[in-house]
Amino acid sequence: MLNLKLDTSRVASFVSEADIKAIQPEVEAATKLLHAGTGAGNDFLGWLHLPSSITDADFKEIEAAAADMRSRVDYVVVAGIGGSYLGARAVIDGLSNSFDYLLKERKNPVMLYAGHNIGEDYLAELLDFLKDKKFGVVVISKSGTTTETAIAFRLLKELVERTAGKEEAKHRIIAVTDKAKGALKTLSNNEGYKTFVIPDNVGGRFSVLTPVGLVPIAIAGFDIRALVKGAADMEAATDEKVPFAQNPSMIYAATRNALYRKQKGIEILVNYQPKLHYFTEWWKQLYGESEGKDLKGIFPAGVDFSTDLHSMGQWIQEGERTIFETVVCITKPNKTQLIPEDKDNLDALNFLAGKNVDHVNKMAELGTALAHTDGGVPNIHVEVPTLDEYNLGQLIYFFEKACGISGYTLGVNPFNQPGVEAYKKNMFALLEKPGYEEATKAIKARLK
Amino acid sequence: MLNLKLDTSRVASFVSEADIKAIQPEVEAATKLLHAGTGAGNDFLGWLHLPSSITDADFKEIEAAAADMRSRVDYVVVAGIGGSYLGARAVIDGLSNSFDYLLKERKNPVMLYAGHNIGEDYLAELLDFLKDKKFGVVVISKSGTTTETAIAFRLLKELVERTAGKEEAKHRIIAVTDKAKGALKTLSNNEGYKTFVIPDNVGGRFSVLTPVGLVPIAIAGFDIRALVKGAADMEAATDEKVPFAQNPSMIYAATRNALYRKQKGIEILVNYQPKLHYFTEWWKQLYGESEGKDLKGIFPAGVDFSTDLHSMGQWIQEGERTIFETVVCITKPNKTQLIPEDKDNLDALNFLAGKNVDHVNKMAELGTALAHTDGGVPNIHVEVPTLDEYNLGQLIYFFEKACGISGYTLGVNPFNQPGVEAYKKNMFALLEKPGYEEATKAIKARLK
Repeated sequence: MLNLKLDTSRVASFVSEADIKAIQPEVEAATKLLHAGTGAGNDFLGWLHLPSSITDADFKEIEAAAADMRSRVDYVVVAGIGGSYLGARAVIDGLSNSFDYLLKERKNPVMLYAGHNIGEDYLAELLDFLKDKKFGVVVISKSGTTTETAIAFRLLKELVERTAGKEEAKHRIIAVTDKAKGALKTLSNNEGYKTFVIPDNVGGRFSVLTPVGLVPIAIAGFDIRALVKGAADMEAATDEKVPFAQNPSMIYAATRNALYRKQKGIEILVNYQPKLHYFTEWWKQLYGESEGKDLKGIFPAGVDFSTDLHSMGQWIQEGERTIFETVVCITKPNKTQLIPEDKDNLDALNFLAGKNVDHVNKMAELGTALAHTDGGVPNIHVEVPTLDEYNLGQLIYFFEKACGISGYTLGVNPFNQPGVEAYKKNMFALLEKPGYEEATKAIKARLK
Repeated sequence: MLNLKLDTSRVASFVSEADIKAIQPEVEAATKLLHAGTGAGNDFLGWLHLPSSITDADFKEIEAAAADMRSRVDYVVVAGIGGSYLGARAVIDGLSNSFDYLLKERKNPVMLYAGHNIGEDYLAELLDFLKDKKFGVVVISKSGTTTETAIAFRLLKELVERTAGKEEAKHRIIAVTDKAKGALKTLSNNEGYKTFVIPDNVGGRFSVLTPVGLVPIAIAGFDIRALVKGAADMEAATDEKVPFAQNPSMIYAATRNALYRKQKGIEILVNYQPKLHYFTEWWKQLYGESEGKDLKGIFPAGVDFSTDLHSMGQWIQEGERTIFETVVCITKPNKTQLIPEDKDNLDALNFLAGKNVDHVNKMAELGTALAHTDGGVPNIHVEVPTLDEYNLGQLIYFFEKACGISGYTLGVNPFNQPGVEAYKKNMFALLEKPGYEEATKAIKARLK
């Protein structure tokens, strides 16, 4: 089943049918290359058939571990950075109550995040908060030596052992890591932690449907089977055998590359549903890290509308004409809230009385799409019926598949991230990490 | 006192001393124009001498209203959009505990936000949460008819009256609005709400130091006198009489315009302190709305590092060379957290044992600045000693003053936002708002 609808009609005045026809063969070739597994970065294609290959036993193992964790704690800290937390957070925030942190009667643990920054205040305040709470940790790192995550995990491990006891702590820590090697795998073996595997052939930004995402999502109380089902249906709907005209991932990849060739160098992902804020953050990594290399790539940015129409709206409407937008639209909200009548009507809103709030939201969206295209901003529209696990699964795989195709169409390796190492090397040299003696000398000389 | 340090040395390989010398007279002229009050948008210059003109009586009035609200409620909803909430939220988030929402023993009310989106789920969940709570509302709107805010306020007003009674509700609602006219002023007069004035000559994005920002910040428990003192000291430090070489706002305005002239069309504001996330959102509106017009203007984006080095870091390091970064650095954290020793040292972090977490953060920052400049990304560094009211005041006014100068240097009116109306006109036509009959007919015909 294909729930997702893609509408590219509002790019027609910027990119012609002929432009799309011209790029179509390149996109088809990129799709073939992806499926053949013979392109650049082909040792990282494990995500391609991942949704359809997850077994009932896989789900059961995750669900059992999640149930055990949920029975023991009130708070769960997800410790990971980049692809090791963004996918989980995108799904969890997308499905949670907007005021989840404040709810007192709960069926799910409060999900917190750490190991994704090096904030001294942040870590001090986290530990101070947790010191008298029942909490667990899901630590996610392939190597176990990622600086941000490793620092946070040292502190969290010490605290959970001190407050819950060494024996209970073994059950309150789950590690998602390499199948056989690395610091975190070794530690987990030594301590007896439950572990899940980050497959060797799935990069961080494509890993939300591996245990990297599924373990925290299940602990948070959401239906990982429905999530994966949505993705699996999208895997079928975007297969290489599905022709271009019916294949949303191919059309999206073609459209954005055609726009990029017309000097549209910035893409904003737009939502009109505040819960999708972290979905956009996940998308920014997916596209930014996959395509931003070899001195090229669309710059991915995010806005939450209508909120940011009152901050970034002016620039988008009348600034440099180097931008296009992709709107993720949810057809129907999950809750119902009508606009009430007011006897005085000083705010002149009575013409909306009795209407759903979302009706105004939808007219804001349509009005904005028209204003933006009139103003020189091409508009791509992606829509799913509701915000739930199944449709998030569709959205996730749709964007992943399009990203692989788009990267090959752009002519880069969409599955590496060589630039991420540059700051780390300098940082280790500055921190005088053992093994970096020469680099330390060089960087110190440079800073003199 | 000038606490803020600006370092532009890491742009030297992109913009030469001669480039800066060439632009300096333009920036000086822009500064003079701003102070003379004869440039475009000169009816919106009320922010320029605002910090030094706030009186003890002004503070006392705000502090008294804040104390009264604090004595009555546990939750306060700030209802406003764009410039009517971003400044307050930037300061409140900057000064609050990272896990403020979760703290049970509190001296300050929980601050919530509404009227900044049209999310049906968001509003339904907010009202459901508040239905059995003691809560108040600060509604912020010059006209009282801003759609997002007016819808939320209708719902919140009805709920506070229903749950607390009509008489108590009068004390639980504060309006920040026009001094004399408009729907919200009229309603406040009718109902007997305490009101504060949005000055006619201060635009939304420059209004954080008016009651728009100061009322919520005072209610949240923070020192508005110190905030304004920091801004007033920066007002003096960036006066037109302070020569270019000593004037940080002039130097920042010159540097970013010089970079823009060299095709650096994207500026990212970077922090290494998660609490500054909303400060960046405030900055995006300030610069985006002031400069994004007449088909020009730098595109403002934000990143939280080191978090986003693991998502946007690849693009920044190796993508299109059309980007520069401005880092807001806090010299010293407020809390202390050391990295512990671990006997097994599997993560190989013992070389950092006993060090402050922030030491690693600072080396990440320096290592990143070097990697980015090496990779073609100019780096501007802004630093204040600590994250507190006084230094936030310095940062706020520094960026405001530089924005006015920068906009005039760019050749735009930095104080209008004509493009923000475009989507609203379409939205009202689509919603069939009375008075929009012709526009409704036209837009319906277009959509056929």
